[in-house]
Amino acid sequence: MKNIAIGQAGGPTSVINTTLVGFVKQAMKENKLHFIENGYDGLTHGQFSEGNETILKWILDHEHIPGACLGSGRYAFTDENISTAVRHLKKMSINTLVFIGGNGTMEALNKVGIEAARQKYDLQVIGLPKTVDNDLGCTDHAPGFGSAAKFVAQATRDLSRDLYSMKNFEQVRILETMGRNAGWLAAASGFFKTTAEEGPHFIALPEKPLDQEQLLKAVKSALTNYGYAVVVVSEGVAFSNGKQFQHDVVGGRAILGGISKQIEQLLKEELKVTARAELLGMSQRSFSQSVSSRDTAEAYQVGVVGASWIEEGLSNVMVSMERTEKKDYEIVMKPASLQAVASCGERVMPLRFIDNLEAYYKWLAPIIGDPITSYPPLAPKNTVFTHY
Amino acid sequence: MKNIAIGQAGGPTSVINTTLVGFVKQAMKENKLHFIENGYDGLTHGQFSEGNETILKWILDHEHIPGACLGSGRYAFTDENISTAVRHLKKMSINTLVFIGGNGTMEALNKVGIEAARQKYDLQVIGLPKTVDNDLGCTDHAPGFGSAAKFVAQATRDLSRDLYSMKNFEQVRILETMGRNAGWLAAASGFFKTTAEEGPHFIALPEKPLDQEQLLKAVKSALTNYGYAVVVVSEGVAFSNGKQFQHDVVGGRAILGGISKQIEQLLKEELKVTARAELLGMSQRSFSQSVSSRDTAEAYQVGVVGASWIEEGLSNVMVSMERTEKKDYEIVMKPASLQAVASCGERVMPLRFIDNLEAYYKWLAPIIGDPITSYPPLAPKNTVFTHY
Repeated sequence: MKNIAIGQAGGPTSVINTTLVGFVKQAMKENKLHFIENGYDGLTHGQFSEGNETILKWILDHEHIPGACLGSGRYAFTDENISTAVRHLKKMSINTLVFIGGNGTMEALNKVGIEAARQKYDLQVIGLPKTVDNDLGCTDHAPGFGSAAKFVAQATRDLSRDLYSMKNFEQVRILETMGRNAGWLAAASGFFKTTAEEGPHFIALPEKPLDQEQLLKAVKSALTNYGYAVVVVSEGVAFSNGKQFQHDVVGGRAILGGISKQIEQLLKEELKVTARAELLGMSQRSFSQSVSSRDTAEAYQVGVVGASWIEEGLSNVMVSMERTEKKDYEIVMKPASLQAVASCGERVMPLRFIDNLEAYYKWLAPIIGDPITSYPPLAPKNTVFTHY
Repeated sequence: MKNIAIGQAGGPTSVINTTLVGFVKQAMKENKLHFIENGYDGLTHGQFSEGNETILKWILDHEHIPGACLGSGRYAFTDENISTAVRHLKKMSINTLVFIGGNGTMEALNKVGIEAARQKYDLQVIGLPKTVDNDLGCTDHAPGFGSAAKFVAQATRDLSRDLYSMKNFEQVRILETMGRNAGWLAAASGFFKTTAEEGPHFIALPEKPLDQEQLLKAVKSALTNYGYAVVVVSEGVAFSNGKQFQHDVVGGRAILGGISKQIEQLLKEELKVTARAELLGMSQRSFSQSVSSRDTAEAYQVGVVGASWIEEGLSNVMVSMERTEKKDYEIVMKPASLQAVASCGERVMPLRFIDNLEAYYKWLAPIIGDPITSYPPLAPKNTVFTHY
């Protein structure tokens, strides 16, 4: 029997609690569990609660609830804080520390492992991946992304139909997605597109500076050919002659956002059209009615595997999802060293996907997972609207 | 056999095509159908297409597709345009004109009926209701509203969980809903709320001017008691010392919006908190993965009933949905004169609902319709997070 402490960190997802539940169900059988409140903040300040019957039941009730039920957040996890945290874990005889998180979390866990070794404390450290941005390295993808990608793809398809209906009133909509410095989510917006006339007609990814001329040309062409235009832009996109737009800075962390509004202004001025910027917002990472069932299953499995590794004695590793070479989609969970994950940094979209979205959508399809309903074409074949 | 022309007008909904399909399936058996492109614009300029086999099949494929497949839009339907439209309907021997729309449409149809009588043309006119704002008079509610209300309720619940998780980073979120001058949609945001700690903690409706002191007090109280605050505000809300905010004016029509951003600024300044405004956006009226199944069923039925009235010879009426007094929810479709609907104007929320949201939610429950999953409480009972 081990003393295990688990917490959640970074931006929540629709399925971060699913991973927690998978982990708890597996780990509670043989171990004593402690829950950390509000991520590294709670880890630093020792806000733990012991996993009694009430709390365990309460956590299990969150299997399909969005948000991070233990409390997450962002917190400056300084070297001093890390040192304090390790000393306290030692004092509480916690043998194993587990966190569900993204890039920042894996980097933090790696530091905790190093600090524990320095303090000569035998601490087992395990990371469980989550991200909506899909910018976590050393894994095919991570839980949370599939559901967010599905929301973006579905919302873009539906909003395109909505705008097309209204094209004699409003011609252009610019949808801004999450993603930070990686374009995975924004690129997912075209997943359901099957014809040139359907939106999105232009997708801007942070991996490439946005060329105004190219944007204007694409929008003009869509307006000429289909009477409306849908532009999707990732929050991290910068114009080729400018910088990323920051909506706000909180606790030293830049909250990206605002590029869609800039594009709205540009299109209004240059093309004299009615254009409206719209942020897809926090529903991307939380809307519970469009989670991907595969994402849910994988999120759960990541938790189960992490817990099983505790028994096997693995440490300083993240549960990585490796896609096998088999024809049918298959994921194998393998350990990736936290050191390796931390040195990956933010994983952006590779050129082979940026330059070939069809290849990207083929890769994405099993992650979005659920059966795809096809939409009829925007106009019936050979329709003639007669002018009387 | 009659010559029937049908069109769609105003902002689309998730189920406006469902009504069209219900109508077409019923009416195509005995009549010749003509489809009007882009609402009154097409009606004025004679953009019709005859319902051949290809088009009929294409329309039937839209039963569960958001947006208005015939094209909708907003168009200045002046007296001159109405007169032109009637002359052309006469020339084409169209016996029956049917439009799916909201307030503006019923008013327009009423005028068309009057103009036809003036031109001594025997034109049967029927209106099929739709609205996401629920501001259409002479009916219990209208198709489109239930799905939009469900989206708002679900998104607010999920976004509240998301924010609560992040409360050591961001404290306040202000969600702005559609609704124009009526608060039905904004008020629906609290539909799933079962405890005081869950969001929304404050809802601002356009029916009442927004009192800054009251808002600040409610937000402060939520921050003190729960550590975070979710505010929902309808796009049509004005501060008690100000006017409605206009995002834009297109073709003389004000597009409301921006009040949430004003509240964000106010809260940042007055309370020194991290606050973020977020528009729930066009997904409210289009997101296909959270439509209410009852809304879909009712939207379809409205179309079927409208078509059946053509045979019965009714004219200058809208299909109105009357809720019976029975204990179990039951809707009876009855004719309401277009004249009466037009004179109703925008139907705002009655005081008996504004002052008693519980009564409103009881009324709303069957319209949202689908079984409600309950969320566990934000924190487990009697949890003590121990500080070590």
